[in-house]
Amino acid sequence: AEAVRDLESDDVVDLVEDLDEEQQWQVLDALEAGDRVAVEKALAYPEESAGRLMQVEVVRAPSHWTVGEAIDYLRASDDLPEHFYHVVLVDPRMKPVGYVALGRLLGAPRKDPLTELVEESFRTFRFDQDEEDVAYAFNQYHLISAPVVDQDDRLVGVITIDDAMIVLDDEHDEDILRLAGVDAESSLTDKVIATTKRRFPWLAVNLVTAIFASLVISMFEDTIATLVALAVLMPIVASMGGNAGTQSLTVAVRSIATKDLTGANVWRVIRREILVGLVNGTIFAVLMGLIGWVWFGQPMLGVVIALAMVINMVVAGLAGTGIPVVLEKMGIDPALASGAFVTTVTDVVGFFAFLGLAAMLLL
Amino acid sequence: AEAVRDLESDDVVDLVEDLDEEQQWQVLDALEAGDRVAVEKALAYPEESAGRLMQVEVVRAPSHWTVGEAIDYLRASDDLPEHFYHVVLVDPRMKPVGYVALGRLLGAPRKDPLTELVEESFRTFRFDQDEEDVAYAFNQYHLISAPVVDQDDRLVGVITIDDAMIVLDDEHDEDILRLAGVDAESSLTDKVIATTKRRFPWLAVNLVTAIFASLVISMFEDTIATLVALAVLMPIVASMGGNAGTQSLTVAVRSIATKDLTGANVWRVIRREILVGLVNGTIFAVLMGLIGWVWFGQPMLGVVIALAMVINMVVAGLAGTGIPVVLEKMGIDPALASGAFVTTVTDVVGFFAFLGLAAMLLL
Repeated sequence: AEAVRDLESDDVVDLVEDLDEEQQWQVLDALEAGDRVAVEKALAYPEESAGRLMQVEVVRAPSHWTVGEAIDYLRASDDLPEHFYHVVLVDPRMKPVGYVALGRLLGAPRKDPLTELVEESFRTFRFDQDEEDVAYAFNQYHLISAPVVDQDDRLVGVITIDDAMIVLDDEHDEDILRLAGVDAESSLTDKVIATTKRRFPWLAVNLVTAIFASLVISMFEDTIATLVALAVLMPIVASMGGNAGTQSLTVAVRSIATKDLTGANVWRVIRREILVGLVNGTIFAVLMGLIGWVWFGQPMLGVVIALAMVINMVVAGLAGTGIPVVLEKMGIDPALASGAFVTTVTDVVGFFAFLGLAAMLLL
Repeated sequence: AEAVRDLESDDVVDLVEDLDEEQQWQVLDALEAGDRVAVEKALAYPEESAGRLMQVEVVRAPSHWTVGEAIDYLRASDDLPEHFYHVVLVDPRMKPVGYVALGRLLGAPRKDPLTELVEESFRTFRFDQDEEDVAYAFNQYHLISAPVVDQDDRLVGVITIDDAMIVLDDEHDEDILRLAGVDAESSLTDKVIATTKRRFPWLAVNLVTAIFASLVISMFEDTIATLVALAVLMPIVASMGGNAGTQSLTVAVRSIATKDLTGANVWRVIRREILVGLVNGTIFAVLMGLIGWVWFGQPMLGVVIALAMVINMVVAGLAGTGIPVVLEKMGIDPALASGAFVTTVTDVVGFFAFLGLAAMLLL
């Protein structure tokens, strides 16, 4: 409990929020009155908000001060936070109006006004902003620290880069796991039952889409009964489409996340993905057409698989880019849901094109 | 060219390294003699190394100085870098021995020796270390800045968090794209031909593995000819195994990257993944068994698909964890190569188990 006294307020909050109520009281009781109020206040902010992420220990100075006044004030303080990188300038109503990096402060003449040293990177966050947005802004604008304000724009704390990086790190893991249909909260230490539950929903979605693809196949049962080679070759068409679609999809989901893919360039990207599908599709179609011909001794079977492959890989490029964009527009997280839709499309189109063309051209 | 003079050395290096030789000379000519030497030196460091990432403008102080001496020195300097967060302490041979955060410096009494204020987070990087390792260490140890040393351990520059974050951001994108078999260097602005080439290798690998799965199916052509329902249902078994395998694989690849999955806990994780496969496999097997029975009116067909599904999902858990671990041990990037191996295993095992059991139990 003694050790808790030396932590900054955001670290105490991190520690306390995972404890049960009795333990929370034990920790809070160990704190000095001022710190305790700060921690209790932080715990009142919504989870995963800027208010939870910030520390309340802020080094601030009136915006009309000079460099000399600020240095003298800092030199005379005896309770500066352990880590701080900026002096936040506030107006008389405690609204942050800019900040000065310590390095700039140390390098400037005593008589210079602080307002002449403020950094362009300055921006504030509201206490109730999502921590994900805060971390994203830290990354985007290369922030080291940023003040947090309350609903009246008054300074209530500061978030530093170390806090933002932890959030970014979690987001990074979530981004990857979501694409594979794994619950973002899952961890290596989860127990069997917890893991089973987390993986279940995505597998259930996959079962439904797989059955849907099977229904397409069952439309062509007679065709397959006449020519069993079709059953042998059909997974190749679906698999190549699925892979090409996943490639397009991953690029699209990343580009949406990093805000590189927007309404302005979406048609250009879709056009490119379709052309890529056409070029790669044609190359693999010729190759697979030859393999199909040699394997089963039927040139027309080669033509059928080649045509089906080109069709499916073009559709893969279109669906792989179009589906995440449409989901994003509908307010659905494209990272989470795109995979199931895209592979359903490539399975259905792959089986339908291959077996349909076979029924038309071979029988 | 004038604007280049105001940049820090690492930013000039960033700018220059992408230019052609003539343009490089133009920029270098515009620099002051001292800066020019620094940039030329940085360009001599290996690409994507700590030497390229660092700036040469370092604020340093002899390790025997006091707080007062350091502050007076900083106040008197007129060419401090724009952004710096620490004063690096060096011994008489210019070897960095610690650093003091500016905030600590400002808060300490003038007579305190600097050595009493050094931060525990202090660590140095060699000029030839990979920038990826540097960025990883910044993230892991929450560094704000870190000195770079040459082969004789002498201070040659400093890397700051903003440089490290750019590298981390690139790594993040690469991690995700690699899992989907997309070349990590690809970008949204690539042209059609460049994109086609980048996507080609993975699709080629997939074609080979898909043909391998088809060879398994062709072993059972007679079985399928007798009962076409098998061709309708077999993609479901392969697809569920593929999805379960991808889930296990993604968790394993992430855990290896974050060093959470090690030799010590690998058996425990594999055991868990197998059990998860067994539980989810059993649930979906019962469900799919009933569907198969109702759909085709043959109870034994339900039993066959159920058994095949349990087998394939257990294998998926084993392969999804085991394959990345083995690839990592062999020095192959598991993020890049695991996907192809795991889905090949689940396709082959899925088709073989389903069609093999059908041949034994149904005909």
